[in-house]
Amino acid sequence: MESNSVGLVTPRTFTFGSVEEPMVLESGRTLGPVDIVYETYGEPNADRSNAILICHALSGDHHAAGHHDPHDRRSGWWDNMIGPGKGFDTNRYWVICSNIIGGCKGSTGPVSIHPATGEPYRLAFPVVTIGDMVEAQKRLLDHLQVRRLYSMAGGSMGGFQVLEWALRYPERVRSAICIASAARLSAQAIAFNTVGRSAITRDPEWHAGGYEGRGPEQGLATARMVGHITYLSEILLDAKFGRRLQSADRFCYNFTNEFAIESYLNYKGSAFTERFDANSYLYITKAMDYFDISRSYGPLKQAFARVAARCLFVSYSSDWLFPTSQTKEMVRAMLCNSKPVSFIEVDSPYGHDAFLVEEEKLTRIVSGFLEGVAR
Amino acid sequence: MESNSVGLVTPRTFTFGSVEEPMVLESGRTLGPVDIVYETYGEPNADRSNAILICHALSGDHHAAGHHDPHDRRSGWWDNMIGPGKGFDTNRYWVICSNIIGGCKGSTGPVSIHPATGEPYRLAFPVVTIGDMVEAQKRLLDHLQVRRLYSMAGGSMGGFQVLEWALRYPERVRSAICIASAARLSAQAIAFNTVGRSAITRDPEWHAGGYEGRGPEQGLATARMVGHITYLSEILLDAKFGRRLQSADRFCYNFTNEFAIESYLNYKGSAFTERFDANSYLYITKAMDYFDISRSYGPLKQAFARVAARCLFVSYSSDWLFPTSQTKEMVRAMLCNSKPVSFIEVDSPYGHDAFLVEEEKLTRIVSGFLEGVAR
Repeated sequence: MESNSVGLVTPRTFTFGSVEEPMVLESGRTLGPVDIVYETYGEPNADRSNAILICHALSGDHHAAGHHDPHDRRSGWWDNMIGPGKGFDTNRYWVICSNIIGGCKGSTGPVSIHPATGEPYRLAFPVVTIGDMVEAQKRLLDHLQVRRLYSMAGGSMGGFQVLEWALRYPERVRSAICIASAARLSAQAIAFNTVGRSAITRDPEWHAGGYEGRGPEQGLATARMVGHITYLSEILLDAKFGRRLQSADRFCYNFTNEFAIESYLNYKGSAFTERFDANSYLYITKAMDYFDISRSYGPLKQAFARVAARCLFVSYSSDWLFPTSQTKEMVRAMLCNSKPVSFIEVDSPYGHDAFLVEEEKLTRIVSGFLEGVAR
Repeated sequence: MESNSVGLVTPRTFTFGSVEEPMVLESGRTLGPVDIVYETYGEPNADRSNAILICHALSGDHHAAGHHDPHDRRSGWWDNMIGPGKGFDTNRYWVICSNIIGGCKGSTGPVSIHPATGEPYRLAFPVVTIGDMVEAQKRLLDHLQVRRLYSMAGGSMGGFQVLEWALRYPERVRSAICIASAARLSAQAIAFNTVGRSAITRDPEWHAGGYEGRGPEQGLATARMVGHITYLSEILLDAKFGRRLQSADRFCYNFTNEFAIESYLNYKGSAFTERFDANSYLYITKAMDYFDISRSYGPLKQAFARVAARCLFVSYSSDWLFPTSQTKEMVRAMLCNSKPVSFIEVDSPYGHDAFLVEEEKLTRIVSGFLEGVAR
């Protein structure tokens, strides 16, 4: 394990609510008890004013840094950003990452046991929103006695949570870092989510959500494949794969995975089914589709008047799923309200995935911003 | 029927080759007999020097203009461009459109009867290339006694055929119109085709291509949905659908097709299965993936040295599947060879589909170009 790793970490579970006193969701439906799985890195200071909340994206989870086991080949999903001396410096900050509700990685979601039936919820699980995810995170922070976050950060759907926090609980957020995200999901992004959900629900193994065991793996793989294309830029696909064949010089004139990009996507799609639940994919993409600041808080200028956090917005030049134009909309709304806002479009060929892989550039930006918040 | 329609048309079938004397394909495999279904509009002049060949795209066919029946609600797929006084003016030109081999609209393809078995070919059908499609078209033109085409035109995969003709049979093509196309399919476009094919082959109803009857309709619908997104621009999706809900003011918090774009895509996907064969979708997208001028004819500059046709290239500003940059590559290669070439990027919000719907702009461009060819 590298010297700047947070090392071994153990997830913990916080439970709130009950069948009798459930959480009331935005839809009006209820959920309880609610489990939140989370990890922390670094140590809280005396008044717990050094906490930073990390929010994950669609296929992420609470395991953002370090290892669960000394033999783990994979570290947490943002291990390149979280650790001693890293962008989110665990020598200084107490970093917290929790798993969203509705997912399949430990927090309450469609694979959890429904207390009324003793069976997994499956489609009896209520549809949750980004607001509901944030509400559950707030309960966790209350439990952890964090009155006000020093900062919070997230990319993509993680950025939705950051925005929702800054608007819903302005007094609880001292600074916020919103990366590769937007004030609402665009029609094109809803369209891609639609294809993913359709691939799952059109798979006969879905059984209207009632599958046991592996379920609609083929549909889930297809959903992941289309998602994957949207996370990468055209320029990267050209550079990394181009028209290269996977293992031959000549065309084979059949329907095997002949091109390298074909082989890669099919591999990624199938691998995803090992670690993700198809119903959870439906719930989380639906929560993304619903996200629209203006629907909840009015036109952007009016909405951002609520924000008390110092904000940093980061976009990536080749990200076409959450293009820079969508970030600029929010920056303008902050400026119109004379709010402290920083914005940078990072030059990168990595597309939407840049927030996960361009750690060197992001580290410099994040470190500087976090340093400035204290002043 | 409007006064500028070509009116009622009847498809015809030309057959060449036989089991004993089959067509030899690029793969080395053979196919015979081969049926080519085609339509013609307008009349040939005495020496048949006024023929224009129209090449269709993935989901198109030979029915490019007019009606098959007085009660048809739908006319041919390029009816807005082909007819008396239209861009391809049937008062002056003899317009021919044939159905590609490998498809499912009448020309020999995977749904045709395999002479060796008396059953549909299904996956026993050999993989065909754009070159093979062009070879079959050449046999048709020989049969129709067209020595040299006055012009030819096609968008998207139709543009691939135009390019292949101009390179393979330069002496047979006096002028060529290549619209919304490219010298090769990009890695991103192969990636989207991969998702479409995977959606089909991962559908259990596919039965390794051996389905009878409707087959993998769900997979084919998903394939069409993802394709459809790539044909439309983000700006059009925003303007036409945005985040509008299909039939309610409030979120319904379930997995129905709630957003208008969701409803539209699912409808389009399911409707496509009524008129297209899933195996044909595999064959045609594979032919597209294989298309690469440089693989057959060398670097573009060298390849375009072969071209004898006066060429017109048209691209559309919001087309991200076949972006203008890919057209410019070909225009540069023509210029480097001092070949007569015209190029225009049409400003349009319609994305890749613009070549089918922006008839007013295209008519002016095409009419002028065709007029100039005679001079």
